[in-house]
Amino acid sequence: MAISAKMREFVANGSMIRKMFEEGARLKALYGADKVFDFSLGNPNVSPPDIFKRTLKAVVDADEPDLHSYMPNAGLPAARAAIAARLGTEQRVDVRAENIVVTCGAAGALNIVFKALLEPGDEVLVSAPYFVEYGFIADNHGGKLKIVASKPDFSLDLAALESAMGPKTKIVLINTPNNPTGKIYPENDLLALAEAMKRKGARYGRSLYLVSDEPYRKLAYDGAKVASPLASCPNSIVVSSYSKELSLPGERIGFAAVNPLAEGAGEIAAALALANRILGFVNAPSLMQKVIALLIDQEGRDKGLPACVDVSIYQRKRDMLAKGLKSAGYDFSLPEGAFYLFPKIPMADDGTFIDLLKEENILVVPGSGFGVPGYFRIAYCVDDATIAGALPGFARAIEKAAAFA
Amino acid sequence: MAISAKMREFVANGSMIRKMFEEGARLKALYGADKVFDFSLGNPNVSPPDIFKRTLKAVVDADEPDLHSYMPNAGLPAARAAIAARLGTEQRVDVRAENIVVTCGAAGALNIVFKALLEPGDEVLVSAPYFVEYGFIADNHGGKLKIVASKPDFSLDLAALESAMGPKTKIVLINTPNNPTGKIYPENDLLALAEAMKRKGARYGRSLYLVSDEPYRKLAYDGAKVASPLASCPNSIVVSSYSKELSLPGERIGFAAVNPLAEGAGEIAAALALANRILGFVNAPSLMQKVIALLIDQEGRDKGLPACVDVSIYQRKRDMLAKGLKSAGYDFSLPEGAFYLFPKIPMADDGTFIDLLKEENILVVPGSGFGVPGYFRIAYCVDDATIAGALPGFARAIEKAAAFA
Repeated sequence: MAISAKMREFVANGSMIRKMFEEGARLKALYGADKVFDFSLGNPNVSPPDIFKRTLKAVVDADEPDLHSYMPNAGLPAARAAIAARLGTEQRVDVRAENIVVTCGAAGALNIVFKALLEPGDEVLVSAPYFVEYGFIADNHGGKLKIVASKPDFSLDLAALESAMGPKTKIVLINTPNNPTGKIYPENDLLALAEAMKRKGARYGRSLYLVSDEPYRKLAYDGAKVASPLASCPNSIVVSSYSKELSLPGERIGFAAVNPLAEGAGEIAAALALANRILGFVNAPSLMQKVIALLIDQEGRDKGLPACVDVSIYQRKRDMLAKGLKSAGYDFSLPEGAFYLFPKIPMADDGTFIDLLKEENILVVPGSGFGVPGYFRIAYCVDDATIAGALPGFARAIEKAAAFA
Repeated sequence: MAISAKMREFVANGSMIRKMFEEGARLKALYGADKVFDFSLGNPNVSPPDIFKRTLKAVVDADEPDLHSYMPNAGLPAARAAIAARLGTEQRVDVRAENIVVTCGAAGALNIVFKALLEPGDEVLVSAPYFVEYGFIADNHGGKLKIVASKPDFSLDLAALESAMGPKTKIVLINTPNNPTGKIYPENDLLALAEAMKRKGARYGRSLYLVSDEPYRKLAYDGAKVASPLASCPNSIVVSSYSKELSLPGERIGFAAVNPLAEGAGEIAAALALANRILGFVNAPSLMQKVIALLIDQEGRDKGLPACVDVSIYQRKRDMLAKGLKSAGYDFSLPEGAFYLFPKIPMADDGTFIDLLKEENILVVPGSGFGVPGYFRIAYCVDDATIAGALPGFARAIEKAAAFA
């Protein structure tokens, strides 16, 4: 056997998702790309903001001597300082450069956080539905994902989370705004969660850490505020990226921020920097670090010119999709943030419904891919034309589904 | 305890190297940066070639729509094809795009290769002296580094390597040109190593893989050719990066190439792509992938304009340093490639000699950092002035060392 037994199993399971991509490619070849409505991937279709493009060009044109050089594993001092200042303002905590490790996106950040914190067999608690990649990341570092169902409205089930915290629990992982539900967890829930973690930590004589994965923080609609995990819970770490807020998913640039009030904040930051090196990231890409540092500084000077994509575009897409789905009879909560909508599957058999959508050339991800059968995820970070073009197909699919009942 | 016991130990041990950096910073603050001769880091001081800078600027100016988007985890199709074509020509093997995974540098590539291949407890054989990071990378994925001494001239001890191959050996890891010795392994040694791996694989009923870490391939002097692991050994994987040949260590761009003749070549490539995703790299940075693809294509059209730093600059630095050290009485082999020189420590106590060099404001890395006490590494990827300025100090240190005898 060439590859390890576990990787062979992962590759085989991973191929279910690949099959959907292949199905998309097959349909696009058959009917033309404009006739296929692909809502499967969270790949932002909104262009990076002009301020990003101008800053990137300025940095490349300036061509400073150390632009592409090695740097400390935790990142460029200027990038760490800028990220800390912005995050501290947003989350009302005195975050300093020394609390920040610049990373290869949020996925890189989660890997170094789990590598730093987890003992073999330690548990990571997560509320379902959840991003399926979390399971792989916990497993990479000897941890185990423990899944707790959310309430019917996809808010955190605090009692269930607390009773799931056991002697092996080290991390409680939240994702707000949530992929795939678009839910934003309110501050009271974060405060209650922090209290529960403190109680269980005291009982088992160990420190539990809240890890908040929040790459969608800036994508909140109708003026919704995303509560601050750092202000709500001293033992907390934020991981994030610029993939969504600047539409840079391919560049792999993000960060981990350790709450300065966390127990062992200093040794956690040191372990994150070491993990960044030994897991092979070494440091986040240097050119993008430089750009992010300048961009955040610029944003601080130009009040009202945020270094962020135009969120109203996503809100418009959400409203367009939600209106069409509602009039077709789908059952869902209006997403408060992120760019996913997570309706109920309107029949008993999930696979059959996904096939009914495929017959309409509509590609979505079944909820089982997020630990919650009976739902499906629509990633609406696509052209308006894709949404408009798909709505008749969504309507026909729910009509056909009714015939199965 | 905030971080895991293992990471706490790693952070504590890692601090020996950090202490050297801090010592460097202390000395530079005390005497001025130009009075401190820092040979501790392999951070190229030669600027990226103009062809790289022009291509980067052209790509940023063109600002194509998907420049910063997600892509397949294995990389941009154009980058995979270009890397395959160039590598195939260099190594005389029919490498295709499907055999390539673009990675976050060679360290990222090694991590995904080890993640893909190693079962818990599997051994990775390496010839000492070796890059100390290899031990961490094997450990990340449940593997164990098994160290085999090289011959006195730092060539591979083939008999010792063969007898070290046991029932748990999965990978034989080589680094050519070698860090820290500058040794290039000749083709006959690679062929003999491949035969030995085949014999042992047959005996234990498992496939052994040769992994060649070769970011210094283009940095070979006096017209030396770096033999081809891919042509010498069917079960082989090359990992490399553009960090040294294009002076881009901060950008984290490299690749893993699976020999198309390897057993399970297809499933290895699939596992590497999956490992790229789940370890959090997701994909190598997209802008740099685009630049590398264009750069290699351009190199193919402009014969005689290699997409590579001017290697004669490093050869000149090597010669300057070697001449000075030789006349001072140091004992070493002339490096055939890379940008490190690895002399014997001219006294019984290594630490005392490192301190004698520090008294001269000269910073180097002791051989114990590469698994071989009794030597030290000089990274000569520095200004000519640093080399010239340090030579009197090297001469005084060896004189003082003689007084200890």
